[in-house]
Amino acid sequence: MAGLLSSITEPGEVRKLSLEQLKELAVEMRQAIAEPVFKTGGHFASNLGTVELTIALHYVFNSPVDKLVWDVGHQAYPHKLLTGRYDRFNTIRQYDGLCGFLERSESVHDVFGAGHASTSISAGLGIAAARDIKGEDFNVVSIIGDGALTGGMALEALNNAGNLKTPFIVVLNDNEMSISKNVGGISKYLDRVRADKRYLRAKDEVENAMGKLPLLGGEMLSLAKRVKKSVKGMVVPSTIWEELGFVGLGPVDGHDIAQLIETFELAKKTRLPVFIHAITVKGKGYAEAEVDVQSRIDYHFPKLPSTAKKPPTYSKVFSSTLCRLAETDKKIVAVSAAMREGTDLVKFAQQFPDRFFDVGIAEQHAVTFAAGMATEGLKPVAAIYSTFLQRAYDQILHDVCLQNLPVIFAMDRAGIVGEDGKTHQGLFDISYLRPIPNIVVMAPKDENELQHMVYTAVQYGQGPIAFRFPRGDGYGVEMDSELKILPIGKGETLREGSDMCLVAYGSEVYPALQTAERLAERGIEAAVINARFVKPLDEELLLEAARKYHRIVTVEENVLAGGFGSAVMELYEQKGLNEVEVHRVGIGDHFVTHGLPSVIRQKEGMLSDGILAQIEGWFPELTLTRTGTKAVRAS
Amino acid sequence: MAGLLSSITEPGEVRKLSLEQLKELAVEMRQAIAEPVFKTGGHFASNLGTVELTIALHYVFNSPVDKLVWDVGHQAYPHKLLTGRYDRFNTIRQYDGLCGFLERSESVHDVFGAGHASTSISAGLGIAAARDIKGEDFNVVSIIGDGALTGGMALEALNNAGNLKTPFIVVLNDNEMSISKNVGGISKYLDRVRADKRYLRAKDEVENAMGKLPLLGGEMLSLAKRVKKSVKGMVVPSTIWEELGFVGLGPVDGHDIAQLIETFELAKKTRLPVFIHAITVKGKGYAEAEVDVQSRIDYHFPKLPSTAKKPPTYSKVFSSTLCRLAETDKKIVAVSAAMREGTDLVKFAQQFPDRFFDVGIAEQHAVTFAAGMATEGLKPVAAIYSTFLQRAYDQILHDVCLQNLPVIFAMDRAGIVGEDGKTHQGLFDISYLRPIPNIVVMAPKDENELQHMVYTAVQYGQGPIAFRFPRGDGYGVEMDSELKILPIGKGETLREGSDMCLVAYGSEVYPALQTAERLAERGIEAAVINARFVKPLDEELLLEAARKYHRIVTVEENVLAGGFGSAVMELYEQKGLNEVEVHRVGIGDHFVTHGLPSVIRQKEGMLSDGILAQIEGWFPELTLTRTGTKAVRAS
Repeated sequence: MAGLLSSITEPGEVRKLSLEQLKELAVEMRQAIAEPVFKTGGHFASNLGTVELTIALHYVFNSPVDKLVWDVGHQAYPHKLLTGRYDRFNTIRQYDGLCGFLERSESVHDVFGAGHASTSISAGLGIAAARDIKGEDFNVVSIIGDGALTGGMALEALNNAGNLKTPFIVVLNDNEMSISKNVGGISKYLDRVRADKRYLRAKDEVENAMGKLPLLGGEMLSLAKRVKKSVKGMVVPSTIWEELGFVGLGPVDGHDIAQLIETFELAKKTRLPVFIHAITVKGKGYAEAEVDVQSRIDYHFPKLPSTAKKPPTYSKVFSSTLCRLAETDKKIVAVSAAMREGTDLVKFAQQFPDRFFDVGIAEQHAVTFAAGMATEGLKPVAAIYSTFLQRAYDQILHDVCLQNLPVIFAMDRAGIVGEDGKTHQGLFDISYLRPIPNIVVMAPKDENELQHMVYTAVQYGQGPIAFRFPRGDGYGVEMDSELKILPIGKGETLREGSDMCLVAYGSEVYPALQTAERLAERGIEAAVINARFVKPLDEELLLEAARKYHRIVTVEENVLAGGFGSAVMELYEQKGLNEVEVHRVGIGDHFVTHGLPSVIRQKEGMLSDGILAQIEGWFPELTLTRTGTKAVRAS
Repeated sequence: MAGLLSSITEPGEVRKLSLEQLKELAVEMRQAIAEPVFKTGGHFASNLGTVELTIALHYVFNSPVDKLVWDVGHQAYPHKLLTGRYDRFNTIRQYDGLCGFLERSESVHDVFGAGHASTSISAGLGIAAARDIKGEDFNVVSIIGDGALTGGMALEALNNAGNLKTPFIVVLNDNEMSISKNVGGISKYLDRVRADKRYLRAKDEVENAMGKLPLLGGEMLSLAKRVKKSVKGMVVPSTIWEELGFVGLGPVDGHDIAQLIETFELAKKTRLPVFIHAITVKGKGYAEAEVDVQSRIDYHFPKLPSTAKKPPTYSKVFSSTLCRLAETDKKIVAVSAAMREGTDLVKFAQQFPDRFFDVGIAEQHAVTFAAGMATEGLKPVAAIYSTFLQRAYDQILHDVCLQNLPVIFAMDRAGIVGEDGKTHQGLFDISYLRPIPNIVVMAPKDENELQHMVYTAVQYGQGPIAFRFPRGDGYGVEMDSELKILPIGKGETLREGSDMCLVAYGSEVYPALQTAERLAERGIEAAVINARFVKPLDEELLLEAARKYHRIVTVEENVLAGGFGSAVMELYEQKGLNEVEVHRVGIGDHFVTHGLPSVIRQKEGMLSDGILAQIEGWFPELTLTRTGTKAVRAS
């Protein structure tokens, strides 16, 4: 089956193979990628598109002495296969298995970790600069997709790279689309380049034609030289990269191993910043994936077959509510940063094409663009994953909150995201948003409350407002047919008690309720509050709870440092309530690894088991007394 | 003196003036700008450079119906003068006076607030998109400097703008330098354009020459057309903007009012995205400022004459320590994001040119570039203002801390920055850094401790480490000649006590000591701890203090939400210390306005007066009893 692939334990071994064998290797690699992806999910099409690119890179460059810096990481499965991880490849994205992205601790060949887009040119340039300072001699190659190229950091890095004039290779893996169809001027520029099939022949012809230009004196001669330079730029089509100080190579066929090897060899010899434009087909070699754009979007990350009728996802509830509201409220506009599918805004985009903006991988611009629209009285909804919104931190603070503009932040994939792991966990947004003045920050306990929050956010209008919701399915609760406005800064008591009070935020409300039930079985009566808002907090409700129960346990799916629990403690401090005993359940001070969300939630103590165990530790006088001598503590 | 200027109460009134009067107006405006700047400081040269640009903009466009969106804001003094703020212009940057940047609440003509760079294209594009959705008809003009243009968000926005195909004008105010000399491929590209004095004449000549090209059949004809398009692009030099979907105009002389008016009128008629390249001279019209590059750097923000021999600034202590260490430690490299002067790294850059990198206004790239260097065993020091580091939040988290790379963050201008005001206060860094795993976060009490912290950070090497220090002068304390390594996570007790303990962080240690002295005068003995580290906290010392004093007051120059005091409360919660009474002094939940740092610190309760007043409120049993019946409380 995988005779060649299984024999490769070090990437350098590809150099022992003939061109025919390399092509065979590519076939084996595609099979190896398809198998686990269709079993456990994963980025599929991107990885099929980089098979030949990866083979050629490892053929020409000597990793890990030469440094291959991959962008985003979901193009890097072929790289994993060739760098000693074939035998563990079926564990990808599973708990204790291989990471779905790049991770330095996983392999010496992963020289720079990556999960978010647009980092590779900066990191690669840093490595090249360090090499020069140390007086060493090796090659640095950053491989970036055309989607990631429009991210601000990548453009900042390109601007810097040409200037440094040091050997450094950027490979543009241009597959004509990132996760959504690409947008923007750079994308159109690449379209024109791709469309021009005559680029190589044309180049020669123009050079010949230039030689035939009538000479009009010195002025015209030097002009002709400049014309020639510019013509070359336009016709070889790498003007932009060349203007920025790169030597431009390509476009090359990103599936032609021989042509790629030749191009990489040439780039290596150049000893200057080189920009290689490689054209690939996302999903190459997998017939169904190659059909059309829509299927390629689906195959970016194939949906696993569902085993039963499922409740709607939170993303679905968010987007369908937004569509419903946008039908009557013409001020609602939606902004996405290359995540139209992920945030389920496809229907919104179809229904309201004039009010939908996909700005590409460009979270900073997305937020300030939304801020601009808010100054004109619109109601912009920026739908961005919690982890990617980190990219726009200053824009939230300086462009939105400082000016108190009514931008609505719909933070998808907040909390534990599961298989995407460390780079994608949405575990910081409470801590990073809460310190910013003027913003309202909230989270729903379930999908029904989410629809009310979408409505509340859209109706609010007095300043910025953010709500987070988890990846994946809701609980299947009944959905109110009428939308309600939730009063800002007001929570709700879901269960009365006498011994203690669990104050939970968003996705932890149901686990807190479960915990209360389990405590009740032991004769301990815990009240449960659904806080709804972390900013502003429901002061009245929380102060009453403190006076009534004395024992307060906060529960949140966020890092503990600066999180929801800290906000509650801050409130009690400000109000001078010293008699209350507060304890906090949340994520500790570490990055959270990948695996099934249910597995990771369990491991991180986010389910009732973990909450209960902690409560037992904090209140032994309650838990031990009432349950008798038989210790109920986990250990 | 200012006969014309004083008569202008609305910007539209410039349209009543003749060209000669407009030129006279420019002279009056330069005088008006120079006066307060030399009295109270301010951005000088940038503002002198935009006088004619501003006159022409207000001549052609009808603000506030048409929207002028200024970038950064320190080019906007002329705009303030023409928009009804001339009479208050001498209050600029003073407490209760005009803001030094753009502020929506100050004028309807400030359509989008700005202090940080690179925001104007995103915001302007948002406004244009909103206009189209609302079916309205007005012009939107974003004015951006060549330095700000290299910021990632500006490039993201340019990429998006050409795509939207809606009337929208970008004016590049190209003065060949931002605060430091500009760097990077885009800057070199602009250099080439500027250097080509023949651009207009050449354009005609090429078009003529093209007409004379021998026809070589259909292929060559269409090629000739493309060549012509490209030649125009190179010679009129706006290829890059045109490639991105803009109509390119210019370069135009940014000090020629007539030419500017003509160009803006043309842009207005075009009804497409237009990119105007205007060339200005920073400091134009002020002889000394126009002399050379170095003086223009000084005149970006002129130094006020010092009245006495002053202690060194914190920036100076940071940079001279770094230079001292870099002499023997060849692994030290410094990275700046267009703030070589601000962070006082000029000497470092001269002494170690191969180990200094100014990447331009590009904080995201700066941090990940540093991360790349760290993977190669170097010791990169990213010297970035606290407020600008917000731009690189995801890079700190995803590229540095997640991979536990030993990048050193020197956060200049942390805490209250004074006259720059809301957009520039460094009041969030404790809250936004502390939730991130792996990073060490610390702050020195004075300039002597700062030099030890620089040394400690450079020697640490086990992961990311950050230290913050204030804008302005140190205390003039004695500087140890030998550098010491401060043990990570260890604070120091500066004063013993018996009634309470003040735990202060960084710049608040001395005010806390003063407070303790004032309490002692009243017979109250407060211990004082210099925490040094907020991550990791000195658990031993803080637990001991809790047990010993019960009353703990934390003091920090940062927002209270998620700040240092919250970290202390979190520690006590984690350790189950409920008997301790904690109170927190810091900045409340609001943006902090501009004014002299001493004035703002007083207003915000950051000096001993404010700390004392709060302590009296929290511990009346102590403060009232011991000082007798005569109330000492502030009210």
